Amino acid sequence: MAIPVLADVLAAAQRIAPYIHRTPVFTSRILDGMCGATIFFKAECFQKVGAFKARGACNAVFALPEAQAARGVATHSSGNHAQAVAYAAGLRGIPATVVMPEDAPPVKIAAVRDYGARIVWAGADPLARERAVERVLAETGAIFIHPSNDFHVIAGQGTAALELLADVPDLDVLLAPVGGGGLLAGTALAAETAPQVRVIGVEPAAVDDAARSFRDGRIYPPTDAPTVADGLRTFLGNVTFPIIRTRVSDIVTVTEAGIIAAMRLVWERMKIVIEPSAAVPVAALFEHPDLWRGRRVGVILSGGNVDLARLPWV
Amino acid sequence: MAIPVLADVLAAAQRIAPYIHRTPVFTSRILDGMCGATIFFKAECFQKVGAFKARGACNAVFALPEAQAARGVATHSSGNHAQAVAYAAGLRGIPATVVMPEDAPPVKIAAVRDYGARIVWAGADPLARERAVERVLAETGAIFIHPSNDFHVIAGQGTAALELLADVPDLDVLLAPVGGGGLLAGTALAAETAPQVRVIGVEPAAVDDAARSFRDGRIYPPTDAPTVADGLRTFLGNVTFPIIRTRVSDIVTVTEAGIIAAMRLVWERMKIVIEPSAAVPVAALFEHPDLWRGRRVGVILSGGNVDLARLPWV
Repeated sequence: MAIPVLADVLAAAQRIAPYIHRTPVFTSRILDGMCGATIFFKAECFQKVGAFKARGACNAVFALPEAQAARGVATHSSGNHAQAVAYAAGLRGIPATVVMPEDAPPVKIAAVRDYGARIVWAGADPLARERAVERVLAETGAIFIHPSNDFHVIAGQGTAALELLADVPDLDVLLAPVGGGGLLAGTALAAETAPQVRVIGVEPAAVDDAARSFRDGRIYPPTDAPTVADGLRTFLGNVTFPIIRTRVSDIVTVTEAGIIAAMRLVWERMKIVIEPSAAVPVAALFEHPDLWRGRRVGVILSGGNVDLARLPWV
Repeated sequence: MAIPVLADVLAAAQRIAPYIHRTPVFTSRILDGMCGATIFFKAECFQKVGAFKARGACNAVFALPEAQAARGVATHSSGNHAQAVAYAAGLRGIPATVVMPEDAPPVKIAAVRDYGARIVWAGADPLARERAVERVLAETGAIFIHPSNDFHVIAGQGTAALELLADVPDLDVLLAPVGGGGLLAGTALAAETAPQVRVIGVEPAAVDDAARSFRDGRIYPPTDAPTVADGLRTFLGNVTFPIIRTRVSDIVTVTEAGIIAAMRLVWERMKIVIEPSAAVPVAALFEHPDLWRGRRVGVILSGGNVDLARLPWV
């Protein structure tokens, strides 16, 4: 497996610039006071498709040679990556097939359709889902774009941290949520532009497979536990893991109550709609305060796609 | 009564620059498509105290001569203006007294206290409230800062539109919500920097006193009806009205259902937490589409202070 490096993140930034937003960086004197740190929030909720996933998908789709691209792309996802691949394929004008569970949120199904992608239904069972993708690949010759364990996806996700470090070069720490590890690995690569920065991943304690994998040096399978940050219920792969293992300083965990409180705090005080996964590193600011006290901390607010009819605090 | 002009808005912009945010302007291809217009949203929800009211209050507080300022300021408000006056007085280091109803939202009471203001309780009855303010003024010699019908408050509120027109000079139309008319009057003054711009106020149909006042050329008292945009349940005054009457092109009204749908749409698609009053001009985009089709429309998203435990669509 080829492993991306910083140069691949820099190339991704050039490749995807026409298709993504350079998202704003927010500060909040109130949250700074509460945490005893100076925090810079990279607001990827204002990204295309409402999440950083647009970066990796655009990089993967636009990196394809013409002949491969013509056969289309495919993926499996019930979340932001599905929309992102549909969005990127629509921009390039190539076919996209997304394998989704029937119980995916209707608003996400509609978004994938609106971008012009074909949906193939498969239940929530991971094995059935993978078989469905394999059938699509065999039938169409499409290229598979994994949600996280993919060379170009990782390089693309790293462009968010690259922009943040260009805007705020003198950070001490950079926090990103970790599920499959695409964002965290890309962030770690981008952080080589600022050698003083320590990159730390944050994971819900309920699904702490990445934290255990990092500690023990081997990839653990995902746990089956529920978490409000359901976008992070995936596991590391053979591309993300070596990057994270060698370039990330630590992976810390946070509680479900902490995630919900952090999400609500950002909505209430910063007026930004973030999804539970994006609140995971914010929760770490409060649950591990000794790690950041007096420091300059960058936080990737990964996305803002939420079902507004079902808020976790109501 | 002295009536402010454009020069007063320009002076306000200089005076308050150290104390307020230059808020970002957002666009949304999705909302553009839904409305058939090109819309530029001035996101005052990211302003200090979460609303444009910080502008007018800072202008009024910092315009005071030293001797007057030393005696402090006072106002009555259960909403954003209370926080804004407390914020501005705290910055200048002068006493502030805010007359509030006992049933004001706890989060707003806490915010006013956190900024260091003194709270005097008076019920929701407007007469009792005014008597309470008069007692404060008599006892302390403080200067009264009206939430809308005030020379410097109007000039300060106009700085939001001034910034928007500096960023996007070629607008055709500028929409602002209207309650007491401070924001709308200030917006109309600022719009003289771009003579092609038509300024239109938007009001909930349930409390359409400003629309009727505009049409009939006389100030009507507020209606007692409930509206989800409760920040707009006030009425025009002898400073705001002449400006609005002469410089605003029209005042249109929107339904309660339209306000709630517009609020939810901005949260869902733009990931910005706006309060119901801020959704009022967004609702007009959908309820009066013929007015904006093909145009470049500026919208002031006035604020983002919402009780997250009580959302109108849940």
